[in-house]
Amino acid sequence: MFARNQWYVIGWSRDIGADLYSRMVCGESILVFRKEEGTLAAMRDACPHRLLPLSMGLREGDTIRCRYHGLVVDADGRTIEMPLKADRANAALCAAKYPIVERYGFAWVWIGDAEAADPALVPDFWMCAPPEWVVDGDTYHVRCDYRLLIDNLMALTHEAHVHATSIGQHELRDFPIDTRVEDGKVILQRWLADVPAPPAYEAAAKGGRVDRWQVCYFIAPSNVAIDVGVAPVEEGATLANHPVRSFVINAITPETETTSHYYWGASRNVDIENRARTAQTKAVQAAVFKEDIEILEAQQRSIETNRDLKMRNFSIDAGGVRARAIIRRLAGRASAEPAALLADENE
Amino acid sequence: MFARNQWYVIGWSRDIGADLYSRMVCGESILVFRKEEGTLAAMRDACPHRLLPLSMGLREGDTIRCRYHGLVVDADGRTIEMPLKADRANAALCAAKYPIVERYGFAWVWIGDAEAADPALVPDFWMCAPPEWVVDGDTYHVRCDYRLLIDNLMALTHEAHVHATSIGQHELRDFPIDTRVEDGKVILQRWLADVPAPPAYEAAAKGGRVDRWQVCYFIAPSNVAIDVGVAPVEEGATLANHPVRSFVINAITPETETTSHYYWGASRNVDIENRARTAQTKAVQAAVFKEDIEILEAQQRSIETNRDLKMRNFSIDAGGVRARAIIRRLAGRASAEPAALLADENE
Amino acid sequence: MFARNQWYVIGWSRDIGADLYSRMVCGESILVFRKEEGTLAAMRDACPHRLLPLSMGLREGDTIRCRYHGLVVDADGRTIEMPLKADRANAALCAAKYPIVERYGFAWVWIGDAEAADPALVPDFWMCAPPEWVVDGDTYHVRCDYRLLIDNLMALTHEAHVHATSIGQHELRDFPIDTRVEDGKVILQRWLADVPAPPAYEAAAKGGRVDRWQVCYFIAPSNVAIDVGVAPVEEGATLANHPVRSFVINAITPETETTSHYYWGASRNVDIENRARTAQTKAVQAAVFKEDIEILEAQQRSIETNRDLKMRNFSIDAGGVRARAIIRRLAGRASAEPAALLADENE
Repeated sequence: MFARNQWYVIGWSRDIGADLYSRMVCGESILVFRKEEGTLAAMRDACPHRLLPLSMGLREGDTIRCRYHGLVVDADGRTIEMPLKADRANAALCAAKYPIVERYGFAWVWIGDAEAADPALVPDFWMCAPPEWVVDGDTYHVRCDYRLLIDNLMALTHEAHVHATSIGQHELRDFPIDTRVEDGKVILQRWLADVPAPPAYEAAAKGGRVDRWQVCYFIAPSNVAIDVGVAPVEEGATLANHPVRSFVINAITPETETTSHYYWGASRNVDIENRARTAQTKAVQAAVFKEDIEILEAQQRSIETNRDLKMRNFSIDAGGVRARAIIRRLAGRASAEPAALLADENE
Repeated sequence: MFARNQWYVIGWSRDIGADLYSRMVCGESILVFRKEEGTLAAMRDACPHRLLPLSMGLREGDTIRCRYHGLVVDADGRTIEMPLKADRANAALCAAKYPIVERYGFAWVWIGDAEAADPALVPDFWMCAPPEWVVDGDTYHVRCDYRLLIDNLMALTHEAHVHATSIGQHELRDFPIDTRVEDGKVILQRWLADVPAPPAYEAAAKGGRVDRWQVCYFIAPSNVAIDVGVAPVEEGATLANHPVRSFVINAITPETETTSHYYWGASRNVDIENRARTAQTKAVQAAVFKEDIEILEAQQRSIETNRDLKMRNFSIDAGGVRARAIIRRLAGRASAEPAALLADENE
Repeated sequence: MFARNQWYVIGWSRDIGADLYSRMVCGESILVFRKEEGTLAAMRDACPHRLLPLSMGLREGDTIRCRYHGLVVDADGRTIEMPLKADRANAALCAAKYPIVERYGFAWVWIGDAEAADPALVPDFWMCAPPEWVVDGDTYHVRCDYRLLIDNLMALTHEAHVHATSIGQHELRDFPIDTRVEDGKVILQRWLADVPAPPAYEAAAKGGRVDRWQVCYFIAPSNVAIDVGVAPVEEGATLANHPVRSFVINAITPETETTSHYYWGASRNVDIENRARTAQTKAVQAAVFKEDIEILEAQQRSIETNRDLKMRNFSIDAGGVRARAIIRRLAGRASAEPAALLADENE
């Protein structure tokens, strides 16, 4: 159920330094650390000898000495010293190396065939690229299938109910959502013209009514960027032209089939030196996503408890349905999107 | 292993009100709430859209709005409003409705084919029917197969050992137990003539020796009522004629294959306005049943640990053996009671 | 994966008295107690009636009364009283008896066919036999496959890394280890000539350099005795002649496939009345083995997490490889040791 030969976020760049950092991605345990020259090393987090996690080992320069019998691997995972010095290490003795790159503030690890790893395929989070943009956020561990998180982010309808006291407003249900696929991305958009500002946007509204926009971009295999904002009606913003831009950033990395790491944040291209604003946005997001996680973990438990029931897709799920179709195709499970699914299920 | 097309207690009537109440019965998660006109509604506790428990939703009159995307179901579980108002709900979109009735102080839910639900089939707890009777008790969650609880209640012999300090007395082992099946009920009875009173009955004994009776009625699929009491020997009570009657009430509802909800209490037809007596009886029962639960949960663990061993049936298990035979038949597993089982196993 | 028809330690003799003692060995739950005449009784820890652990029962002389329905078994596990006194117990009604003997300070239970139990087959811990020897130690529950513990004890190399602050010293890696099989025992030995004393041996070194020895004996099915010590170089000790002898004692008993009881201790043949020395040795061992357990439990988790990876055997694993080959043969899994395994895997 995981799409392989893909880049997945394994952490915020800022969270990975000289210390040994370990995380499971798509069921594979991976050790990451920052080499002395500044780039990252990633390898399977198990000693090639007796499988003790290398992350329990000792770092010696850019090598890791296993804490059990003292085998040493280099930054590429190759054994360079055996437990008994006199023994000769051969080329097959290694912790499998993972391609890893840093971009957009994240460390991305390649799950699949290492030879196929192409940094040009890193998901395009252009809205997280300095110096024009500032990005900040945090990491949550969520006990649910990563696809439930994608469904959540690609179905804007839930805001009115899950987030009633922050970004929700009942007018959300009155405006249509347009869904399309462009360049392999699923795009959902909704424009709310001339509405009151929801609680989280009161300051931006400057006391009056606003235009509000939400444009979700699903970027395979499991990322979602959402262009969100409001502008006072009198400013005459349009979908094509709202120069002040602020994105909600979501990189969702499967840990196991029923658990995920959720790297979330916000980016913007205005007032980017304003740290108080950055911190305030992060605090609002943290509260909003905690509300989502309560729902998502309950949903996961309910799916496991009610094995005889199936989730249904409505018109509002069009984004998630298309994102799942792309994931299925990338995972080699299906060759095309199911054409008439939505209409059928909603009748 | 569950008998279907049966009424099971899902809660004490008094515990189910306007709040959303959720409980798993025979592996099915069920939402219950009291409608504005006073009767109960019950439906599968999963939104027909994305399976979030409806019990996490918001009650609006007699409808429930799912907290995830806002789908609304009525008290019969039918979708009456879609997440996007413009979408049309069809008849197939529903949380399955469960027949539910209130009787004898309990709410009973029907597990099986809803069309077959007949309130006349509610297990006959006539000794819990006001105004002649008062009933009170509580609910325990027990980590064991519900049939172990039935075995326990239908084998009076355990009292001498499990409940030595309350209702146990060594004389229990000296008197025979009669077992029979009548009108689909398994009946066990024991009459202890002219014995000292056990600790819990000292007050009733008025300082002298007593006659003591225990008559257990197994009422399918998983209920046990036990007519218990003592009378001073000089009162000349008989099994047929002991007008002061006090029953131990036990409704055992399977939650999963290895966990149960145990609704227990006591009913009596004397001094029914005496709340202090009611509370005292309940406190004694709570202590006695805690002792049982320690045993039953250890027994369940031992069954799981010792997969190569089988439980044996002795003469004292005649009640449980017959009750299990009825359950097997109701569950479609067997066509008749094993006739010679007890004699064989005890030789 | 367990070798049957073997004696396993079920406890320290001193820990088993009049109280009912229960432990799982090779997946079988076993009750042990000391009879009034002083020897031990052992039987399956489940009542032959309804499987409640007999260890929850009441001891009456040398019999056990089950706490559930009062069935009584004698010290051989035979039912001698039924829950209803009038019922007759037959010969088949019993908790299976286990052969049990006491030797070398331990209680040993026979797992397999009781008729085949021969006390002469108790693993030979001759270095734990008073009056020439004193032995003391403790018990740890370890969440790992028992064979990982054997691997650990039979690969002396880990000391430099896991126990760097106590018995480790970097010189350990400079001296060869000799491995051989003699009389069904796997023997590993290493002689470190003229080295500094590691921290735990500073007192014995008397301020100078020492000769140090380590000789590990694997004694099937799952025991390891290690002859360890240092002597000041000027004393001219040899492997064949170091009269002051001190052994590390390790009896490892599988509980389940992934958990074990680890009975560890030390024995010595000098200064045997010195209780302070005995206590000091035990304290050092406790600290050392805690370090091992942290590693071993992490290794077990890693094995379970990384199902696609296999442990590799190097020259330093020769002892564990041979011990595992013996275990496989005893468990009926293989007929001989894999001859060329080590050479192959290390090239």
